[in-house]
Amino acid sequence: MSDFNQPLGGNSVPRFGGPATMMRLPAQESAEGLDVAFIGIPMDIGTSNRPGTRMGPRQIRDESRMLRPYNMATRAAPFEHLQVADIGDVPINTFHLPKSVDIITAFFDEVLRHDCIPLTLGGDHTMTLPILRAMAKKHGPVGLIHIDAHADVNEHMFGEEIAHGTTFRRAQEEGLLAKDKVVQIGLRGTGYAAEDFDWCRDQGFRVVQAEACWYRSLAPLMEEVRAQMGDTPVYISFDIDGLDPSVAPGTGTVEMGGLTSQQGLEIVRGTAGLNIVGGDLVEVSPPYDTSGNTALMGATLLYEMLCVLPGVKKGE
Amino acid sequence: MSDFNQPLGGNSVPRFGGPATMMRLPAQESAEGLDVAFIGIPMDIGTSNRPGTRMGPRQIRDESRMLRPYNMATRAAPFEHLQVADIGDVPINTFHLPKSVDIITAFFDEVLRHDCIPLTLGGDHTMTLPILRAMAKKHGPVGLIHIDAHADVNEHMFGEEIAHGTTFRRAQEEGLLAKDKVVQIGLRGTGYAAEDFDWCRDQGFRVVQAEACWYRSLAPLMEEVRAQMGDTPVYISFDIDGLDPSVAPGTGTVEMGGLTSQQGLEIVRGTAGLNIVGGDLVEVSPPYDTSGNTALMGATLLYEMLCVLPGVKKGE
Amino acid sequence: MSDFNQPLGGNSVPRFGGPATMMRLPAQESAEGLDVAFIGIPMDIGTSNRPGTRMGPRQIRDESRMLRPYNMATRAAPFEHLQVADIGDVPINTFHLPKSVDIITAFFDEVLRHDCIPLTLGGDHTMTLPILRAMAKKHGPVGLIHIDAHADVNEHMFGEEIAHGTTFRRAQEEGLLAKDKVVQIGLRGTGYAAEDFDWCRDQGFRVVQAEACWYRSLAPLMEEVRAQMGDTPVYISFDIDGLDPSVAPGTGTVEMGGLTSQQGLEIVRGTAGLNIVGGDLVEVSPPYDTSGNTALMGATLLYEMLCVLPGVKKGE
Amino acid sequence: MSDFNQPLGGNSVPRFGGPATMMRLPAQESAEGLDVAFIGIPMDIGTSNRPGTRMGPRQIRDESRMLRPYNMATRAAPFEHLQVADIGDVPINTFHLPKSVDIITAFFDEVLRHDCIPLTLGGDHTMTLPILRAMAKKHGPVGLIHIDAHADVNEHMFGEEIAHGTTFRRAQEEGLLAKDKVVQIGLRGTGYAAEDFDWCRDQGFRVVQAEACWYRSLAPLMEEVRAQMGDTPVYISFDIDGLDPSVAPGTGTVEMGGLTSQQGLEIVRGTAGLNIVGGDLVEVSPPYDTSGNTALMGATLLYEMLCVLPGVKKGE
Amino acid sequence: MSDFNQPLGGNSVPRFGGPATMMRLPAQESAEGLDVAFIGIPMDIGTSNRPGTRMGPRQIRDESRMLRPYNMATRAAPFEHLQVADIGDVPINTFHLPKSVDIITAFFDEVLRHDCIPLTLGGDHTMTLPILRAMAKKHGPVGLIHIDAHADVNEHMFGEEIAHGTTFRRAQEEGLLAKDKVVQIGLRGTGYAAEDFDWCRDQGFRVVQAEACWYRSLAPLMEEVRAQMGDTPVYISFDIDGLDPSVAPGTGTVEMGGLTSQQGLEIVRGTAGLNIVGGDLVEVSPPYDTSGNTALMGATLLYEMLCVLPGVKKGE
Amino acid sequence: MSDFNQPLGGNSVPRFGGPATMMRLPAQESAEGLDVAFIGIPMDIGTSNRPGTRMGPRQIRDESRMLRPYNMATRAAPFEHLQVADIGDVPINTFHLPKSVDIITAFFDEVLRHDCIPLTLGGDHTMTLPILRAMAKKHGPVGLIHIDAHADVNEHMFGEEIAHGTTFRRAQEEGLLAKDKVVQIGLRGTGYAAEDFDWCRDQGFRVVQAEACWYRSLAPLMEEVRAQMGDTPVYISFDIDGLDPSVAPGTGTVEMGGLTSQQGLEIVRGTAGLNIVGGDLVEVSPPYDTSGNTALMGATLLYEMLCVLPGVKKGE
Repeated sequence: MSDFNQPLGGNSVPRFGGPATMMRLPAQESAEGLDVAFIGIPMDIGTSNRPGTRMGPRQIRDESRMLRPYNMATRAAPFEHLQVADIGDVPINTFHLPKSVDIITAFFDEVLRHDCIPLTLGGDHTMTLPILRAMAKKHGPVGLIHIDAHADVNEHMFGEEIAHGTTFRRAQEEGLLAKDKVVQIGLRGTGYAAEDFDWCRDQGFRVVQAEACWYRSLAPLMEEVRAQMGDTPVYISFDIDGLDPSVAPGTGTVEMGGLTSQQGLEIVRGTAGLNIVGGDLVEVSPPYDTSGNTALMGATLLYEMLCVLPGVKKGE
Repeated sequence: MSDFNQPLGGNSVPRFGGPATMMRLPAQESAEGLDVAFIGIPMDIGTSNRPGTRMGPRQIRDESRMLRPYNMATRAAPFEHLQVADIGDVPINTFHLPKSVDIITAFFDEVLRHDCIPLTLGGDHTMTLPILRAMAKKHGPVGLIHIDAHADVNEHMFGEEIAHGTTFRRAQEEGLLAKDKVVQIGLRGTGYAAEDFDWCRDQGFRVVQAEACWYRSLAPLMEEVRAQMGDTPVYISFDIDGLDPSVAPGTGTVEMGGLTSQQGLEIVRGTAGLNIVGGDLVEVSPPYDTSGNTALMGATLLYEMLCVLPGVKKGE
Repeated sequence: MSDFNQPLGGNSVPRFGGPATMMRLPAQESAEGLDVAFIGIPMDIGTSNRPGTRMGPRQIRDESRMLRPYNMATRAAPFEHLQVADIGDVPINTFHLPKSVDIITAFFDEVLRHDCIPLTLGGDHTMTLPILRAMAKKHGPVGLIHIDAHADVNEHMFGEEIAHGTTFRRAQEEGLLAKDKVVQIGLRGTGYAAEDFDWCRDQGFRVVQAEACWYRSLAPLMEEVRAQMGDTPVYISFDIDGLDPSVAPGTGTVEMGGLTSQQGLEIVRGTAGLNIVGGDLVEVSPPYDTSGNTALMGATLLYEMLCVLPGVKKGE
Repeated sequence: MSDFNQPLGGNSVPRFGGPATMMRLPAQESAEGLDVAFIGIPMDIGTSNRPGTRMGPRQIRDESRMLRPYNMATRAAPFEHLQVADIGDVPINTFHLPKSVDIITAFFDEVLRHDCIPLTLGGDHTMTLPILRAMAKKHGPVGLIHIDAHADVNEHMFGEEIAHGTTFRRAQEEGLLAKDKVVQIGLRGTGYAAEDFDWCRDQGFRVVQAEACWYRSLAPLMEEVRAQMGDTPVYISFDIDGLDPSVAPGTGTVEMGGLTSQQGLEIVRGTAGLNIVGGDLVEVSPPYDTSGNTALMGATLLYEMLCVLPGVKKGE
Repeated sequence: MSDFNQPLGGNSVPRFGGPATMMRLPAQESAEGLDVAFIGIPMDIGTSNRPGTRMGPRQIRDESRMLRPYNMATRAAPFEHLQVADIGDVPINTFHLPKSVDIITAFFDEVLRHDCIPLTLGGDHTMTLPILRAMAKKHGPVGLIHIDAHADVNEHMFGEEIAHGTTFRRAQEEGLLAKDKVVQIGLRGTGYAAEDFDWCRDQGFRVVQAEACWYRSLAPLMEEVRAQMGDTPVYISFDIDGLDPSVAPGTGTVEMGGLTSQQGLEIVRGTAGLNIVGGDLVEVSPPYDTSGNTALMGATLLYEMLCVLPGVKKGE
Repeated sequence: MSDFNQPLGGNSVPRFGGPATMMRLPAQESAEGLDVAFIGIPMDIGTSNRPGTRMGPRQIRDESRMLRPYNMATRAAPFEHLQVADIGDVPINTFHLPKSVDIITAFFDEVLRHDCIPLTLGGDHTMTLPILRAMAKKHGPVGLIHIDAHADVNEHMFGEEIAHGTTFRRAQEEGLLAKDKVVQIGLRGTGYAAEDFDWCRDQGFRVVQAEACWYRSLAPLMEEVRAQMGDTPVYISFDIDGLDPSVAPGTGTVEMGGLTSQQGLEIVRGTAGLNIVGGDLVEVSPPYDTSGNTALMGATLLYEMLCVLPGVKKGE
């Protein structure tokens, strides 16, 4: 066995018991001594349609109780090589979005001070901007693999500069993203102008609309993405609504015709070998997730991110 | 028949069809020409626990389709004496609570300019502060009949002055409430200090904790309240969580041991004869209201407010 | 033990298994040889608001698995004195309401030919008219104990003479109801005219509006009802929406301020000693009954009707 | 900007507020002046299994609030070229299916008198027969693109000629369908005879069973369909149960192994260029659609129909 | 402020974030140093009807986030006088009920070794037997205040001696209960024999059937109970199904006509002054608790138990 | 027509009525005279995560009401060639898993004595072990086609030899499975060791991990499986969690990235021609199946098994 923290096993305490932390891992207060920290951001005040992502971190943690330590597809064994814990939730100010944004950046500054990789449970997509601000302070502009139904590059929402649909426009404007190292996968649906996604293309982002993904494996795409990213520090931002609503019904801004669960797994698994410095899974809305399975999908994708982090070797 | 707007009848269009306005009344854009306006405030960014009240106005309107024009208990016939319409939703800024508060006040200033009585579908309880600001501008300090599990008199919430739990402290501090004309009914649960409700008492509010209401009719209480209010302009603010969660499960900050539905009806009916200048029904959270009945309770209480407005006579 | 059919016990097959008949009683095809028959009418095409009562009989039967043979409050022991079975569903024509009405009458004519008391699982309230037609053919005009939020005495609905809101007007017009032997309990809500319930009073019905029931035992009322009914054959028609929506959320035309579950039990128990010739429980709508408890309430009330039938003695 | 009606934008009123019309478009009472009208038919009395489609139009409209004006996949810009509004619901007689059928035809006769293309929100599939009757009066026999799990060509249902499973048999018998211009896509499941679908083939319909669609793009099929249809006026009838239940759980007669959401989009998009004269989306049953996503899928497919109507050009 | 552990406040971390422990209290591994420990028993293999109580402890903890430290009705201030923590779940063997029973006893033996009062989150009612075994070892036979719809005194269930319906028969047979110090409140429903509850009476238990509680305050009853209990160590076992299903829908063996939430509060509050040595709240079944409110009722009742423990004084 | 039992048709009794047996077939008490028996096992005490499969048989039967007699894809006509009935539920002891296992074997011994093929509605996967024990007694070691997310070959679970995750390890150890005739399809997710599935391979099982199934028809695989099985008696065990959670949300141990509904159908249809001696469909958990569709998927797969049994010919 490993010297590292292990998820509490189902033969020690039944899966429906034990601590409601991510994967029933030990909780600790700071990122000190950790290679990887799971962090929650219980926020939905940046959402524009259905509410509920404030409950996301609690529900993702709850359903993550099903996850065992080894990845049966890739044979990755993250808990043999990394010290991982759940360091709880960012204490956002739920009555004030701009203040919450700054609270998040400060929290991640502190996490990154410990050379710890954050994997974050959202929360609405607004949160990725302050995380990227902290990331860029530490790593310089980062490569971005962004899975989503939406480009999230609105100039404003209801006149505000910061909300869950403006994240990547702000990030680009602030220089947080590495040049030619941004890929957006799964975009689709309706927009305020036919050219909404062209702004991304004009910035040099690679835009892979959902239609380009239909009926096929995304392994070849991810091979290209790996080549594109090279050694750049890469951040993964996975909006659960990138997946088709059949796969992830419990979310707030649903668009038909999205990625399958298989494609979602292929994307994350396809980042193995990259210099991943952080990741998030956002927009799980438990009130619309009547079975709890959307939260479990979210937990699984975060686990798959853990399995591709630098330093994780395959079990033999 | 009446010359006034009438709710669309179930023998004209089935109740599950027709416009999704309050009681299937005509919609109009402003309060002009109206005695009473139903108004929605789709807001939940002021809530501190479960989200979802942003969906309240839509759901209350949807379920209100069951309501017919005459009150079988009181024989009130509001649509024979008042011109009523649904004037839609206040366009709040869902990303910024303080700005939304000002948008609401401005909206109600305009409504009141038409000498129209607003009955408002919430929305979280934050909204009552900006409504009271408009009310006091028009009427001076108003009497308040406040039904709620919570006093909503916190000094701050997470450091903010305005949120759904600070409404009536701010209202009192700002002089929006008439002296000795405030009654709070249904308070209960847990608090941050044993003396939380004493602040209210120190202000001269009449505090009727839920325990004082158990197992009895509230008709005698309301008789006293009517005497207390006299001719003062009175505002009714009904937080649906004043009712027991068995009656109103679909809300965000649930407290055990509340008012029965019978008592809820008695309170509103017991205000008949007062100089009521406005009312609201807040904190219906549709994602937690799986049957839709909480929304229908909310719609019914708003209808009962309509039935006690000045000018409404009893059908014979 | 008794020679009569017994509900399948929880120590023979777990309650969540076994046949999905009423109380897990034996099924048989006709009423032959039975003292009492449970009958389902899977119908909702007579409903005017929410649908779903077509699923009522299946769900009531499913949840009835919890019911054991003895009544702990009254010590009634129905299965020691009566031969009871579940004879399945009336094969209504779900595409044609008037034809279904005639199918129902024919079915009950056949049941009554066997001198069997029908206890019927609804289904929407339209069904009580054709049942009463069969009842009156057999027994002459019957006394009626009608528990409901609504009087169901509309002259027409959308121009039709028969729907779930016209049942008792038609019954009265057709002479199916015994003079001065009709009581309606629980009426409330809103109406198309302030005098809607006055038609009932004009017919000599005793109308007990819900408000008259609040905060009190209905045992005294039922004593009066027993005196009123005397030896007349009596039919009980219990619309689950007579109960408060907190007690019975899963129904279609919800009205606030109804009877408590305690009162519902008191009413049925209070009919003991009368010459009851049939009963029904209508308007359970499973799609709006997320816990299944409304169906179980319905099953319980039908069981309580069984416990007051002539011939049932108390266990000692 | 355009001179035409526009959907209310999310930067004007939050998406969870505003009028609950289709896409938050303006409502108007008749089709006068419109190129396209959204129309609801709140009906489920023609359904044979689960109920609930009576709530379909209200729920589709509610969830349609997410839809923005431009189609990001096809760059269609319908609101730049067409005058579109929501003209409300057909006032069916929910107690009488045959009468409702005639009410629907009369309503659509009137709509077509205005040279307006109807896009209809169902409601159960019975409704397509009376719509087709109106269509054929105006356009002569129409081509039909029918997406469904079921052929809906039963000779009778429970002895009735008109119900949701007889629609296209009646339409064919009445000469409403253009010869060799009928295609049915997605048929599958179980039947009353192994040759149930052969009747269709004998009529010259093209039957594309679901199995023929598995694992592949339907773009090639739609190319053939376009060739088959030529210039004939074409009606699209999309039963949401044509989609796999994973995609559209909220419906009444569910069959495993259906079309994916991608294929659903491809079918509608693949009709671009045809002479489409109307369309409908039927069989959304909100009580079985716990997340609301089935309704949103329905709304999306109606929007996609709007995007392929004659006169709509692509945004640049 | 107090030196004791405090629940995490809503002004420090939003209520929908923070640790998912009981009342967001600190977690610790053993009862060492504690006056009171909250303990979970995630078990449902002893249930005879609906499953799901295995999820009870997680859901009760989750919803308990709403509870603040002070009791507004009684002004009790438990966290000023007691050291309280959440010590997690008993690691039952979910595949073997008899083994689980022994695991529970061993766990509570260890807790009691620390002179710590256990307040336990169930789990099904089977668990109270092994807890009482540990209690009696420490304290000798204990007084019992048992709130429930069922007496739980079956001789066997499906031939087994231990299941959720045999708990108090076994406890009595094993001499775990103090003579003349047992009261059972809320019993009702149906039984396997009319005399089911007479066994209890024969043992000297005070049986207060639900019917005896209707329409009245239970304060007088509790005054008698306090007199009856005197100084005896008393255990409180509160089965949530003692409450009416309108109040606590999310449970497995539902019986109509139960206690109101007001009465539930009165019972627990009415034990203040007794020598309470432990308590439990059992039979919350989250899959049937669609709003989460049953879990919150459970959490509240456990909090009220905390407020009446020896040593808790009233805030002033 | 056939002389065999027929499912009750939707033109005789509406689908939402009639007996709640599998496909509304006749019920009988034993397997005597039957070619095929549908059998329920209402069990969830062997589950390790979410509960609820105890309700599986009732819900599968309820939703199976939609199934008509003929298979439209394969034209199979099972009710023309086989005598089929529903023989009810195995009376397991829900308080004792090991005893239940023996009860199941005894029940199936009796079924097999009648040369009847059992198709079993689960219930958790523990049940397949005792069924295989009966199968092997009758037929010798059987070939196994096992569809599942999990291999179910744990050595122990919480120290127990028998639970829902040890079934096939025990079966292999006990010699119940034919050498080189075991195929497991759909395995995936996380495990306790990277080599968890290698134990299967070491036994000579064919392991087809889910990833090997993505984006393709499984017809070619099934052709190989048919060749592998030859004439050996074959048992099909279909765990509904083999399907992707988008297809089958209502189950207890959910894993992302599973089989599509199309693939599920292909697998069962691909067994046509084999010497199938029994089959089961397990792990449907109704409390997590909010639409009922998972139960209907389960019913459909059982029907498809019926369609491939020896003796079933295609309708012409």
